Amino acid sequence: MDDTRPRPAWVREGRKPRVVIVGGGFGGLHAARALSRDDVELLVLDRTNHHLFQPLLYQVATATLPPSDITAPIRWLLRKQRNTSVLMTEVQSIDVHRRIVTADNGARKIPYDFLIVAAGARHAYFGHPEWETVAPGLKSIRDALTLRNRILTAFEQAELTEDPLEQQAWLTFVLVGGGPTGVELAGMIPTIAQQSMPREFRRIASLQARVVLLEGGPKVLGSYPDSLSRQARTDLIALGVDVRTGAMVTNVAPGEVRVGADETIHTHTVIWAAGNAASPLGASIGAPRDRAGRVIVARDLSVPDHPEIFVIGDMAYVASPDGMEVPSVAPAAMQMGRHAATNIRRTLEARPPLPFAYSNKGDLATIGRHRAIADLGRVRLSGSIAWWFWLFLHILYLAGFRNRLSVLIQWAYSYFTYERGARLITDTGNATTPNTSSVRGT
Amino acid sequence: MDDTRPRPAWVREGRKPRVVIVGGGFGGLHAARALSRDDVELLVLDRTNHHLFQPLLYQVATATLPPSDITAPIRWLLRKQRNTSVLMTEVQSIDVHRRIVTADNGARKIPYDFLIVAAGARHAYFGHPEWETVAPGLKSIRDALTLRNRILTAFEQAELTEDPLEQQAWLTFVLVGGGPTGVELAGMIPTIAQQSMPREFRRIASLQARVVLLEGGPKVLGSYPDSLSRQARTDLIALGVDVRTGAMVTNVAPGEVRVGADETIHTHTVIWAAGNAASPLGASIGAPRDRAGRVIVARDLSVPDHPEIFVIGDMAYVASPDGMEVPSVAPAAMQMGRHAATNIRRTLEARPPLPFAYSNKGDLATIGRHRAIADLGRVRLSGSIAWWFWLFLHILYLAGFRNRLSVLIQWAYSYFTYERGARLITDTGNATTPNTSSVRGT
Repeated sequence: MDDTRPRPAWVREGRKPRVVIVGGGFGGLHAARALSRDDVELLVLDRTNHHLFQPLLYQVATATLPPSDITAPIRWLLRKQRNTSVLMTEVQSIDVHRRIVTADNGARKIPYDFLIVAAGARHAYFGHPEWETVAPGLKSIRDALTLRNRILTAFEQAELTEDPLEQQAWLTFVLVGGGPTGVELAGMIPTIAQQSMPREFRRIASLQARVVLLEGGPKVLGSYPDSLSRQARTDLIALGVDVRTGAMVTNVAPGEVRVGADETIHTHTVIWAAGNAASPLGASIGAPRDRAGRVIVARDLSVPDHPEIFVIGDMAYVASPDGMEVPSVAPAAMQMGRHAATNIRRTLEARPPLPFAYSNKGDLATIGRHRAIADLGRVRLSGSIAWWFWLFLHILYLAGFRNRLSVLIQWAYSYFTYERGARLITDTGNATTPNTSSVRGT
Repeated sequence: MDDTRPRPAWVREGRKPRVVIVGGGFGGLHAARALSRDDVELLVLDRTNHHLFQPLLYQVATATLPPSDITAPIRWLLRKQRNTSVLMTEVQSIDVHRRIVTADNGARKIPYDFLIVAAGARHAYFGHPEWETVAPGLKSIRDALTLRNRILTAFEQAELTEDPLEQQAWLTFVLVGGGPTGVELAGMIPTIAQQSMPREFRRIASLQARVVLLEGGPKVLGSYPDSLSRQARTDLIALGVDVRTGAMVTNVAPGEVRVGADETIHTHTVIWAAGNAASPLGASIGAPRDRAGRVIVARDLSVPDHPEIFVIGDMAYVASPDGMEVPSVAPAAMQMGRHAATNIRRTLEARPPLPFAYSNKGDLATIGRHRAIADLGRVRLSGSIAWWFWLFLHILYLAGFRNRLSVLIQWAYSYFTYERGARLITDTGNATTPNTSSVRGT
């Protein structure tokens, strides 16, 4: 604390300091929870009404779980915090000089004394935003429903079509990006095909679905240890996935994906899992940002020259004390949220803020429905042991916001029975129905 | 059978007769099941991929159940019928002379030997189609999600607003139509308010939500016996619903509903549950239709001059032997579906078709979460006994297409815990977000 500064506004005005949190994801939610007993006025803003358990989003996209299994209303999660209000509103910009957040296209102005910005990231298309309509990504429930509609509709279109080449294009699924999201999606699609095609379809019952995973780098799960990365590749190949490393996507257009200079894959379903761009909200803060648009924060997670603003989660670039970059994963966001809360408390107590240190508890990824890989530092697991470990951890977390026993029963039911209701095509509008020109008459 | 007619096409061409069913609702599904062992080629067409348990749709609209609890893929339901194919395609017209169904805007032409038309109904706006954007109805999962988004968003907007008049308008819910759908929706909304407002909201915690049910006729549930209709009214009033009979809606516009000549109700949430219009597909058959657009079918459910075409369910107008009109309810559609299947079988066996006779097993409606009324002919129930009876019947039916024990556990869980995940606002696009002009800054 700089003791020569004037008394803070809330002291002069005889009120509680107001902490505004933008975003109800892992970072924002855990910051809010950490401040539940502090003598502040806490305001959580999110454009949706729900917190999303993002690590299981790929299971909604692949019609394994319904959205209701992995979401909970933010205001329900924070209902017991009497110092907290939740508002469903979309923040567009931050005026760091007047200390005001602007939302709902300028209609709403919300003042703050402390601000935690945790608005996450969207997918990035390497300078080709036009690819997005053909190759949607996976960040929100809405994205997951779009992917679910596209994947399920592809099987329906394959069944409708009598042209063998068109059928194969509808049964070809291309995933761009070999990180955890790409690997997890790629591992689930063969299951959909194996579960439903031979039993429920007539014309395509004898055909094979083709899943292609395109990774530009030399290996899948590039940030994992080599042994686990190799195991993931082996597991994917065992599921029938065509794993292609060193495969650069050079064009995405309706009906096709181009790889390198001279290969074209005919497909009607392309899913983008490569590259992130931080929320554009970071730009209005006026601090330096990295290439992915992340705000480069100080060691205490605050913005240079603005000790009252913290940027956390996927929006923040923060170097660990060991020089390693903090990864864009849920545990890191949760830790940053709690740390920002601690530093606000310390500031209010006139104590200096503490630097953030990321504690990596390990990395996990599932491959298909019964295998996973886990890197827990000293221990590395793969196969079904890793999968049970993954299941245990995720149920433990989900149980944190839903009733413990019933969540176990219900979730296990949905997962193991391959819940049929989740195979729901909800939108037959323009966004998800493929163009009919490629569909022939019966 | 008219023995002077030429031999049927399938006999001349040495193939199986082709039965095409348009619509996978209660009528179409039960017709398909009834033909599972017949020596025919059966084709079921639906524009969605799922069968919908429509009697529980109001529970999705009121965020009590997730969509996955009341849907199942049509092709999964019919997977064991080796004579049956399912195609997801939207039928636009029927050429009764060439015996061809046209789908996907003319791109697909599907010939038939026998046709069962079961495309259902949409809501009708008494000559005011412009009311639909303000006052959506409830027929499909998509409709239910639209209503769910609107109802949940209304509470969020009330919390955002500081103007007391605007808050009350956001907390006022108007239902137009006092039939079973209107009564069931009206009974659920007070529960949402009571469950979530005092615990989770801060600014509107002390306010009251207002639910108004407008019925043009002299009583709610007009087709039920007087004693049950009166009981339903009493139960609704006990839940806090403002029940208004003899209340004609004269205008619906953004922000208001006009009743009669001189009353205006300020509201941002109007739900339409009055009036049905049969699918426009009936028009292309060329047979006489009633005012609601239903095809007036012969006693055997076939279309005059077209013994190979049957129209069933909400699309058909059929008089019972006792002169009573067959109601537009799920049991009637199921019975008609089975009956049309029987008459196709009889035609193939050169036996004369049988007239349809509706067997009314009773009428049921729920009021709120723990009360119902039941008219079983000799027995009339109300209160919680009727509700348990209703629950038993519906679980029995749902169990028909899902695993018996697990559906009981899961469904009861969702219902009794007021499943939080189902309170999901999935769409913040134009269709569901109210105009911001009525929302003030914080």
